[in-house]
Amino acid sequence: MSLNYAKRMDNIRASEIRELLKLTQQPGIISFAGGLPAPESFPVEEFIKIGKEVLENTGTQALQYGPTEGYGPLREAIAKRMEKVKVDVKAENILITSGSQQGLDFAAKIFINPGDIIVCESPTYLGAINAFKAYEPKFIEVSTDKDGMNMEELEEVLKNNDKVKFIYVIPDFQNPSGKTWTVERRMKLIELANKYNVAIIEDNPYGELRFEGEILPAVKHFDTEGRVAFLGTFSKILCPGLRLGWVAADTEFLNKFILVKQGADLQSSTISQMETAKFLELYDIDNHIQKIIDLYRVRRDLMMKTIEEEFPEGVTYTYPEGGLFTWVVLPEYMNARELALKALEENVAYVPGGSFFPNGGNENTFRLNYSNMDEEKIVEGIKRLGKVIREAVK
Amino acid sequence: MSLNYAKRMDNIRASEIRELLKLTQQPGIISFAGGLPAPESFPVEEFIKIGKEVLENTGTQALQYGPTEGYGPLREAIAKRMEKVKVDVKAENILITSGSQQGLDFAAKIFINPGDIIVCESPTYLGAINAFKAYEPKFIEVSTDKDGMNMEELEEVLKNNDKVKFIYVIPDFQNPSGKTWTVERRMKLIELANKYNVAIIEDNPYGELRFEGEILPAVKHFDTEGRVAFLGTFSKILCPGLRLGWVAADTEFLNKFILVKQGADLQSSTISQMETAKFLELYDIDNHIQKIIDLYRVRRDLMMKTIEEEFPEGVTYTYPEGGLFTWVVLPEYMNARELALKALEENVAYVPGGSFFPNGGNENTFRLNYSNMDEEKIVEGIKRLGKVIREAVK
Repeated sequence: MSLNYAKRMDNIRASEIRELLKLTQQPGIISFAGGLPAPESFPVEEFIKIGKEVLENTGTQALQYGPTEGYGPLREAIAKRMEKVKVDVKAENILITSGSQQGLDFAAKIFINPGDIIVCESPTYLGAINAFKAYEPKFIEVSTDKDGMNMEELEEVLKNNDKVKFIYVIPDFQNPSGKTWTVERRMKLIELANKYNVAIIEDNPYGELRFEGEILPAVKHFDTEGRVAFLGTFSKILCPGLRLGWVAADTEFLNKFILVKQGADLQSSTISQMETAKFLELYDIDNHIQKIIDLYRVRRDLMMKTIEEEFPEGVTYTYPEGGLFTWVVLPEYMNARELALKALEENVAYVPGGSFFPNGGNENTFRLNYSNMDEEKIVEGIKRLGKVIREAVK
Repeated sequence: MSLNYAKRMDNIRASEIRELLKLTQQPGIISFAGGLPAPESFPVEEFIKIGKEVLENTGTQALQYGPTEGYGPLREAIAKRMEKVKVDVKAENILITSGSQQGLDFAAKIFINPGDIIVCESPTYLGAINAFKAYEPKFIEVSTDKDGMNMEELEEVLKNNDKVKFIYVIPDFQNPSGKTWTVERRMKLIELANKYNVAIIEDNPYGELRFEGEILPAVKHFDTEGRVAFLGTFSKILCPGLRLGWVAADTEFLNKFILVKQGADLQSSTISQMETAKFLELYDIDNHIQKIIDLYRVRRDLMMKTIEEEFPEGVTYTYPEGGLFTWVVLPEYMNARELALKALEENVAYVPGGSFFPNGGNENTFRLNYSNMDEEKIVEGIKRLGKVIREAVK
């Protein structure tokens, strides 16, 4: 017996990260593989208090169905907080999603006919590639330098391909590369999107986790024609277990997301939304985020310092100004998938970089996460990794 | 400026129910329109206790990412509870979804290429039609009688259409018709699905809400070849605000759901899953369900009695043995959409039945919900509705 699945199912494979994460749950493993936030930053005590308060005062509402668009006071609070990235939106421009991953799935659902083109950074977020692939797009990767996506290359792509539906970008502390776009590149991106009439999906899960300098205005800030959908999430600034994210977009554009949300799961959890709104009302989330930043900055510093000391010449890497990841490029003759097995023998895990390139190649790269391991493990893990890499030097 | 959306977006419209529900939130409206469970049945006190316990003992786990498949102890508990509908499955055959609505979306995502055929009951669940439409199927409706889907008609359809991918059925207290399939029809459905190699999506949100007689074995109980995916949900037996449902299916089939879940939203809420597992551990959910049944039975009785007294001759309706809905068929010359406006003038709301037929027609039908209004409002609302219908008699 074999069921007759849709063509799209040929494209969908298990995420390498999720599979790897299962391996790395063995005790004793030092894992730089996941993208997990530090659990010691989670506001557990606050949520005990909030849970009680929400249920005692508004229990039947919290456990009942709610509107597809989301819980009003949460949409209000998010709209207000969008000031952080200089985006001026109203509550009605916010749709609550089940994590920003759901926003990625919806973006492709809204735009992609089979064979349509998604333009993305090279490399780009693996979870986005997987979500998009279900809609059978082609990917065109555009190279990036230290200032963001290469705009000359992007214009060439847009000029020569009329089936481009949207450009997918992570302008702040990109996953996996750790890079951040300059303001100039953001403005140029809007200029090109306007010129060639394509949409922009701006994914910004880490923008507020900046270790030094000022938070940059979102690409959406420069949006003059309502063609940017901004995806935000509470996963990295509060906790991921609630599965709450959002889409911010102009009315007509957001309405497409709302329609798709209705069919996909009706609405996100009412109680999670009410609790998160209550957190934003009772506590200072900026203060909370500052604690996360202070924690991650130390880890970033330590990881980068140890990499500098331990990794051999010929290996390059990003110095991230925020977020959760750094990105390592090995000499071209090395294969990070093969090295990953050697690293696992040393009880250290990372994600090989090849998976972050939708069209393949680049097997000499890998991603390191520094948010989820304590200081001692970071030093020890990077030392072991340095040894594995040094042994692979020809 | 107009963005270039995917072809599928032409098919997706706002759910009439969701739009109507906004109207019916005006105070004073007697609404038989939604499918909302009675909020007075929600275990608010229990969830206050549980929330505290889960967070105090396992707070960082509850707020962290978890596996795509779902929280182990919840999968265990659901697998065990599937005995209620005589389905013998293990925890690894359960995927936790964000409500059973998400299972519907995934079913179409897994099977449907544009132009493929979904066979369904006529009428069928509006939310399923909306979820499926995003994947551009054709629908073939099969008529039902008091024993369920007409099997001769189904076989004709399967014999003459090779693009049928799955048969979508709600065998217990169907939404919207309130009908329940006999065991014989369930067995025949499996026989035909085996013969013509199609899958079955069995949607069972209300099966345990039976007011009299025994719970029937699920279609999945008779599944000999692993071609049935059973969709369950906590929305009607606990509360919908947590957004937790599940898919039960054989390994290969379930793996497709898991892959799609990964791209769609990574996983359902960790904390909601842990709380629900704790509820099932600490409390007797069967006892809780019995209270819901006792509440709804009184309302069903009262609605049916009042309908009998108030609706004029020539109007027929289902006497549901469980679930949340009854279904009214007016004389063919009446139009339930037009009458809905007159009913709204009397501050009474229902859902016109036409929307439950994917290929249209049947505008002389409507759906009534009896779970969400108290006894007094049921009597008053049905009286007003009877008046509106009587005035439309030619």
